[in-house]
Amino acid sequence: MKSFISQLIKTIEEKDSCSVVGLDPQLEYIPDEIKKAAFKKEGNELKNAAKAIFDFNKQIINIIHPHVGIVKLQIAFYELLGFWGTKAYSDTIKYAKKKGLIVIGDIKRGDVPHTAEAYATAHLGVVKFNGRQEISFEVDAVTVNPYLGSDSVFPFIKLARKNGKGVFILVKTSNPSSKEIQDLKCKNKRIHQIVASQVNKWGKDLIGKKGYSSIGAVVASANPNIVDNLRNIMPNSYFLVPGYGAQGGRLKNIMKCFNRDGYGAIVNSSRGIIYAHNHPAWKKKHGLKDWQCAVEEAIIKMNKELKEAINHNKGNSS
Amino acid sequence: MKSFISQLIKTIEEKDSCSVVGLDPQLEYIPDEIKKAAFKKEGNELKNAAKAIFDFNKQIINIIHPHVGIVKLQIAFYELLGFWGTKAYSDTIKYAKKKGLIVIGDIKRGDVPHTAEAYATAHLGVVKFNGRQEISFEVDAVTVNPYLGSDSVFPFIKLARKNGKGVFILVKTSNPSSKEIQDLKCKNKRIHQIVASQVNKWGKDLIGKKGYSSIGAVVASANPNIVDNLRNIMPNSYFLVPGYGAQGGRLKNIMKCFNRDGYGAIVNSSRGIIYAHNHPAWKKKHGLKDWQCAVEEAIIKMNKELKEAINHNKGNSS
Repeated sequence: MKSFISQLIKTIEEKDSCSVVGLDPQLEYIPDEIKKAAFKKEGNELKNAAKAIFDFNKQIINIIHPHVGIVKLQIAFYELLGFWGTKAYSDTIKYAKKKGLIVIGDIKRGDVPHTAEAYATAHLGVVKFNGRQEISFEVDAVTVNPYLGSDSVFPFIKLARKNGKGVFILVKTSNPSSKEIQDLKCKNKRIHQIVASQVNKWGKDLIGKKGYSSIGAVVASANPNIVDNLRNIMPNSYFLVPGYGAQGGRLKNIMKCFNRDGYGAIVNSSRGIIYAHNHPAWKKKHGLKDWQCAVEEAIIKMNKELKEAINHNKGNSS
Repeated sequence: MKSFISQLIKTIEEKDSCSVVGLDPQLEYIPDEIKKAAFKKEGNELKNAAKAIFDFNKQIINIIHPHVGIVKLQIAFYELLGFWGTKAYSDTIKYAKKKGLIVIGDIKRGDVPHTAEAYATAHLGVVKFNGRQEISFEVDAVTVNPYLGSDSVFPFIKLARKNGKGVFILVKTSNPSSKEIQDLKCKNKRIHQIVASQVNKWGKDLIGKKGYSSIGAVVASANPNIVDNLRNIMPNSYFLVPGYGAQGGRLKNIMKCFNRDGYGAIVNSSRGIIYAHNHPAWKKKHGLKDWQCAVEEAIIKMNKELKEAINHNKGNSS
């Protein structure tokens, strides 16, 4: 039976990388040559813009796929371009899968059960009608917002089980205001701890390779005490850790997201990789030419830093 | 200066209706004649399905727009059909606006600030690139999930202010599991009360007609004590109340969402209106023919029931 977590861990081992490249395309940072080609045709500007971001994504995927096995698409940057953007989202997923990548849809959906079913089917399931079956968005896993409680999460978990997909529940996010609700204390437990306990419980039925579950958690690494505690509450959950690079995640804190076995976390960088060519140091050295080299150097560097830190971590525990 | 709330109240007065029709199209409930026409053409099935739901929506809008001034689109049912569904979402918004309706996008988005900006721009803003401006989804207001805290909500409020749009924050949702997080008590205040206080604060700068704010709240009516209390915490916020009909919202409880002035709430019914022809009583009397009449009767009945209840409410307070 297909299992998201087993496939994820297999991919991490094969690529020797727990990096996730965030494909969050923003037109203003995309190299001019790609934009010029996409906007050559007069007409619907949203369509042209969507073409530019899909062309950019394809090039990024071509560069990174020898080095990394996982990409994450933040759907907001596609929705920004209307349904043409949604088409670029769908096309990018297909292209990434063709290159053998695991694709996480960062959708952060959450709704009442009947509606959550529609979202879950759209992103993790099969749409059935008229005697046929279609797949709308063929990702391997999604992120889900838990504010509406377990009945809003179950439709995603149900399809994760049925179709060998994964779910990452928002437990503690990386933005400063995350403390306002997520860190509130109720009967000696913070909200993020309460959600984490649920994630741990929900994940128990979907255990795969090395004892990890297909139900994971989004966990920001900024506060090491919180991370340590969440690691304890959810020993079997993979953490999707945002913010390597741009969001200021420090390597030392990020390491706390891993278990001592060197597994347990995947680490995302979006802007730090796909716009590496806009980094002042690179710009000064090369200008905006050879942007592909900047992207490749950035992902190789990230892999190396994470690997060294994980090995150091393992050394400390043995 | 354009104000969502002033426009909303003007529309409510003109149409003499605070009903919201939820355009949540599900293929299995759409009349066969519409589906047959849409699927006549061989080819992409998601495209045909999206055509069916857009055709259905147009007919629904034609029937209801003399009776009601507000529609709400649950985007999940469009996402279900991939980017073709998103096109049907966009086309439906345009058609509804052409008929003079106020359109609420029930998107329940919520993300870190940088990403929330992209969502807010997609749904309440103007996309600027290449020296041009485009609008992706032209709704008048959206629903937003507050789990990530105020910095995740501000991008929506900022564009609401700038572009005369509205925001409805999820405060207390209608699903049974909503109690798991939303009803938790932290220092004598429940999470939904804490969110409600923020909504009240955020709304203070966007006051329009009759003292109401363009920043509203999604409030389920099931628990009258909760509703009473939320009405007190957010005296100036319009409540978007789900579940008239299908979700079992009782008229007596729903009335608690209104202020004594007869304003303060809009009440949504989705399945109860747009699939009125599937109601056993109607089916028995007419079969599936004349489905349009069933829809029209249902919205007229809903308007009448709400109006009588509001007048009764006002009578009690004078």
